[in-house]
Amino acid sequence: MSDLPQTQNEEQTDDQGREAHLALEQDVREAVFDKDVRWLSRTLNRLHPADAADLLEQLSTDDFSDAVQLLGEQLPTDIIIELRDEYREEAVDALPDEAVAAVLEELDSDDVTTILEDLEDDRRERILDELSPEDRASLEHGFAYGEETAGRLMQREYFAAPEFWTVGHAIDHARDNADDLPDEFYEVYVIDPTHRLKGQVPLATLLKAARDVNLSDIMEEVQSDIKADMDQEEAAYQFQKYSLASAPVTDDAGRMLGMLTVDDVVDVIQEENTEDLLALSGVNSADGSDTVLDSVKARAPWLAVNLFTAFLASGIISIFEGTIDQLVQLAILMPVVAALGGNAGSQGLAVAVRAIAEREMEGDAARRAIVRETLTGLANGVIFALGVAAIAGFWFQSAGLALTIGVAMFATFVWAGFSGVVVPLTLKRLGADPAVASSVFVLTLTDIMAFFSFLGLASLILL
Amino acid sequence: MSDLPQTQNEEQTDDQGREAHLALEQDVREAVFDKDVRWLSRTLNRLHPADAADLLEQLSTDDFSDAVQLLGEQLPTDIIIELRDEYREEAVDALPDEAVAAVLEELDSDDVTTILEDLEDDRRERILDELSPEDRASLEHGFAYGEETAGRLMQREYFAAPEFWTVGHAIDHARDNADDLPDEFYEVYVIDPTHRLKGQVPLATLLKAARDVNLSDIMEEVQSDIKADMDQEEAAYQFQKYSLASAPVTDDAGRMLGMLTVDDVVDVIQEENTEDLLALSGVNSADGSDTVLDSVKARAPWLAVNLFTAFLASGIISIFEGTIDQLVQLAILMPVVAALGGNAGSQGLAVAVRAIAEREMEGDAARRAIVRETLTGLANGVIFALGVAAIAGFWFQSAGLALTIGVAMFATFVWAGFSGVVVPLTLKRLGADPAVASSVFVLTLTDIMAFFSFLGLASLILL
Repeated sequence: MSDLPQTQNEEQTDDQGREAHLALEQDVREAVFDKDVRWLSRTLNRLHPADAADLLEQLSTDDFSDAVQLLGEQLPTDIIIELRDEYREEAVDALPDEAVAAVLEELDSDDVTTILEDLEDDRRERILDELSPEDRASLEHGFAYGEETAGRLMQREYFAAPEFWTVGHAIDHARDNADDLPDEFYEVYVIDPTHRLKGQVPLATLLKAARDVNLSDIMEEVQSDIKADMDQEEAAYQFQKYSLASAPVTDDAGRMLGMLTVDDVVDVIQEENTEDLLALSGVNSADGSDTVLDSVKARAPWLAVNLFTAFLASGIISIFEGTIDQLVQLAILMPVVAALGGNAGSQGLAVAVRAIAEREMEGDAARRAIVRETLTGLANGVIFALGVAAIAGFWFQSAGLALTIGVAMFATFVWAGFSGVVVPLTLKRLGADPAVASSVFVLTLTDIMAFFSFLGLASLILL
Repeated sequence: MSDLPQTQNEEQTDDQGREAHLALEQDVREAVFDKDVRWLSRTLNRLHPADAADLLEQLSTDDFSDAVQLLGEQLPTDIIIELRDEYREEAVDALPDEAVAAVLEELDSDDVTTILEDLEDDRRERILDELSPEDRASLEHGFAYGEETAGRLMQREYFAAPEFWTVGHAIDHARDNADDLPDEFYEVYVIDPTHRLKGQVPLATLLKAARDVNLSDIMEEVQSDIKADMDQEEAAYQFQKYSLASAPVTDDAGRMLGMLTVDDVVDVIQEENTEDLLALSGVNSADGSDTVLDSVKARAPWLAVNLFTAFLASGIISIFEGTIDQLVQLAILMPVVAALGGNAGSQGLAVAVRAIAEREMEGDAARRAIVRETLTGLANGVIFALGVAAIAGFWFQSAGLALTIGVAMFATFVWAGFSGVVVPLTLKRLGADPAVASSVFVLTLTDIMAFFSFLGLASLILL
């Protein structure tokens, strides 16, 4: 493991690196075509599992399936675990039951849970049945916690030591039990005889202390407080807040159950970010958008809601059918009011949803945000009311039309600013996810305001 | 540091915790009002810096300023560094120059860079002038790298050891030089006499190895390859890919310059996520959206672009002025086509922007995404063309109108699906940030398609 790709890479420019990568991709494709299992397996094993997984993911769907079928049990376990969800599921699907059972026995407990989640219920039962009752109980442990909890995410391997141990004792224990400890850990957890967590000693602190120092003298308070049934998003928040690399997971009585590491938490953060971003644009879920059917399923529900709200807006317009009939310019200009108002609403909404996700909307901050957003709507409202009025007035040579669209634009901006922050805050207060339904509410509210104010004012001022 | 809030917290329900927190907030507010510096300083020091920072951020803007003014140099350095950007800037602004200089000398090098970034140019010069030339050179080191690079983010304190050292030697060195090593680190970096990075030994590995083992025998290859002038986003990507807790930063010749830790990287990930989410909704920047003026500045540019594109869409409609004049129902229905088409385009765009950000659009994946999105547009197009045609036909009792809106809806959906993925991919290929300008392009393209196809077909079929 000590030859250094760095020293070779340095001499390559980025372009050369990219070319080499494309050539490797091509070689893999050809090896799959030629069914050259030996070359394929050797090449994948030579790479870091994360790089090997990347390489496989860049194949076409068919080539990927072929590669997995070809490799079968020779597909290394640590590559499987690095694959993205949909690819990992496919790889696990392609492996025979015994191979999956063998994979499970090799993995850390948190990765075991990931694979178990991938399996269909009856296949999971069949595979677990092949194991000894002890192995089965141990494997199923993480799976017993609810989805998206810290318990599902944690690994049960960690390094714990009693309070009365010295630094030397802890180091000797690590040396004597190297195989039973996880590959990576960053802290020693100090526990009492009933496994209650008393504190933690970061490895850097352990390393700096003399052998005869007691762990209880150098241990720190554990700042995080992560329970196994806690939502993973809350656990991720604590990692961010206290800048953690790992953290203990306990039961309600404070007894050690497992350990979360930051790499899993980063994945959670990215998942939540993806969910928020997609939800704001009316896409239901990040998972399995890899087939057309998945995409349709993830998007049709919000389009259906939008179908309803769009006809609601049409209904508003139809009230003013007579007005438009008399002045067709109104039909030409009304999308301008709706488009700009909707844009202003979306801007405020995005800021609010992000602030809520980063917990910057607690306490007094929410009230301040409402005031700020409404004033922003007011300020932009003045600017763009004047702009729109000038263009429309000039275009159609009508001061009345300019006045009408200007006032409507202003009203819509203020309303958009206000509802862009109040809608997500209200949804949050009601216990709903502010990212999910906010968009459709805000856009409907601004559309209605836009059409109603513009056409309503037109029928008062212009006719 | 060994009394345990956990054991107290357990007995509290969440509600009690929240009440206690609100009471504490109230006490802080009163202490600020009473100018009780002693109580305030003691209370803040008693909390974890991250919790103390949270507490201060929940005060109103005025109370926060008052608290900072009151505390002055008694505001602990580690709380300042935990404050969110805009609050930290205000706190630094409020401190006298000597106090800032004192703060700088206490901090780790990466935090020094953060504070230096906060300062106005002339104030920064003034403060740095107060320091000895050595201190100044050392403090300015990180500041020499470009904004948003790994060099700005890294700390220059790390633990490096020569290849020939044994495990025992490394541990003894850590014990003897405890004060010179960073508080937190997760790896020992193995370097040659010219400071070139040869490999790394995770602390867990060091702990498990016998004293007489050579570091070169247990060191691992460093998978990441982070240069000081590399964009921080690229560095963050490597952390995610290789599941790192920390990583070495080198110069182009592979010589060790510093170390990145995952807590800083998590902040970068969150920043980039915020930028993408806001950019997709037409908000320019995440920073300083705390005043109305900032908000207007961050949003008006895209509203101005939208003003232009909205009138472009109006121009399309005005071509069909005569058609609308003859059939006012067209004015009532045309926003439905535009709204649903725009929604479908936004959905595809959000999925594409997210996939690009997570580097899931490399190689063959981009081609597959274009096909998938176009087919999704086709499928949803069929569904919603039928839905819209049925409702419109029934509402206005016109088969011709139903046919017109159905065909226009279908065409707009396919077009929205295609442009929702092709626009961000094209922007990316041109070297632009796909999140930033995509939205306005996609929405303009779908608006134009919606109005043109609906009104154009209407003039062919219905008149």
